[in-house]
Amino acid sequence: MLAIRGWADPKVVARYAHHWVALGQAGRVLRLARAEHCREAVFIGTVLRPPLTRIRLDWQMIRMMPRVVGFFRGGDDRLLSGVASSFEDSGLRIIGVKDVAPEIVVPEGVLARYEPSPRDRADVARALKVIAALGPFDVGQAVVVADDHVLAVEAAEGTDNLLARIAELRVQGRVTTAVGVGVLVKAPKPGQDQRFDLPAIGSRTIENVARAGLAGLAVAAGNTIVAEPAQVIAAADREKIFVVGVREASTG
Amino acid sequence: MLAIRGWADPKVVARYAHHWVALGQAGRVLRLARAEHCREAVFIGTVLRPPLTRIRLDWQMIRMMPRVVGFFRGGDDRLLSGVASSFEDSGLRIIGVKDVAPEIVVPEGVLARYEPSPRDRADVARALKVIAALGPFDVGQAVVVADDHVLAVEAAEGTDNLLARIAELRVQGRVTTAVGVGVLVKAPKPGQDQRFDLPAIGSRTIENVARAGLAGLAVAAGNTIVAEPAQVIAAADREKIFVVGVREASTG
Repeated sequence: MLAIRGWADPKVVARYAHHWVALGQAGRVLRLARAEHCREAVFIGTVLRPPLTRIRLDWQMIRMMPRVVGFFRGGDDRLLSGVASSFEDSGLRIIGVKDVAPEIVVPEGVLARYEPSPRDRADVARALKVIAALGPFDVGQAVVVADDHVLAVEAAEGTDNLLARIAELRVQGRVTTAVGVGVLVKAPKPGQDQRFDLPAIGSRTIENVARAGLAGLAVAAGNTIVAEPAQVIAAADREKIFVVGVREASTG
Repeated sequence: MLAIRGWADPKVVARYAHHWVALGQAGRVLRLARAEHCREAVFIGTVLRPPLTRIRLDWQMIRMMPRVVGFFRGGDDRLLSGVASSFEDSGLRIIGVKDVAPEIVVPEGVLARYEPSPRDRADVARALKVIAALGPFDVGQAVVVADDHVLAVEAAEGTDNLLARIAELRVQGRVTTAVGVGVLVKAPKPGQDQRFDLPAIGSRTIENVARAGLAGLAVAAGNTIVAEPAQVIAAADREKIFVVGVREASTG
């Protein structure tokens, strides 16, 4: 494991054979990969667009810079794809989580005890359309729709902030749909490089969906990671929240 | 002035000849309009999607209900247009603010001392495209873009909450673009009934744009209301914020 200092959790990293690297040390990454006989790598987790001051450039990275700077001005997805193609030119193939751990990818269908109602299904379909419409803008992995009304669109804030906002807007009187109506939908951006930053859910997501007063959660089947399925299902049943994997084909 | 109880500010209402009405009292509105010899009406301000418990139905409204209920399930825009067409069938013509007070509508061009840079103009163009893409979903009158990256999309939260979020996300490290880079763009939804809920800005908007660390604010020329232009310009100059009215044609 090559752990990025300041982003990776030291408690998790300690459980694996690892080296620490700083963001921007592309040469060090390639040297360590060669020394450890790695030819393929998987990106795990997410790197928020970093402040430039936290980046430590080494010579390899400086050679890559003209390409990476171009990507840096776009969305996160272009940035990661750009960094990946730079690594691949240097002989380290970047593969997806799906390729190595298909068992943590959400399948199609209802995952826990509760089922979406026809109204929930209609809200899910509308949310998928919003995500599709935002595809060209490298934004919007998550959308909340309640009774056909779009309540929130995720951009830089992340899903936990998005769900906390719904709860706050209820208090402010700006969201007035009944508790138990509405869905959170998470899907990769259309055209997203699926080796990076796939949507992920966990028990905390379920708890936040419940706190936001929504009926449930739909995620893109085959393109969403759920690290601990048993805990997620237990949380959904406890909170009376449905969780469903939906085909992204319904995006179209 | 027919002031909606619970929504209109009594201090403002007191300055005008007025009657108070409850939301849902369509018959009372029509009777008062006839008694006062009104044949045209302008909707001022915004009515957040109300909780059903705050609505007081009278018989006229009950007669309108089958139509209004259909509109109620859609976005706010469809709801207001539906209510308006019901009033028009009863002889009260609903006109726009633009028709009676063109002097409070933002013109095209730079409004205060500071000018948008070419980068700011590129961010404005991108934000207008996001607003256009969201048009079919009756959502997204405001979008924040910084250095080509979409940071926030408004849905139910309102522009002040949206701007407060940008400031918070900086603290959380989720927004890392430099202070002084980025724009807020407000425009009516494409196809919006322009008699209702036009985007509006005031000095508070300017102050919130500054607090969010953005360079400035672009609004749809001809379709945005600025109630007190002199105060808005003074606030923009004080906060070193540009304010520009842009053609929505650039939406396409």
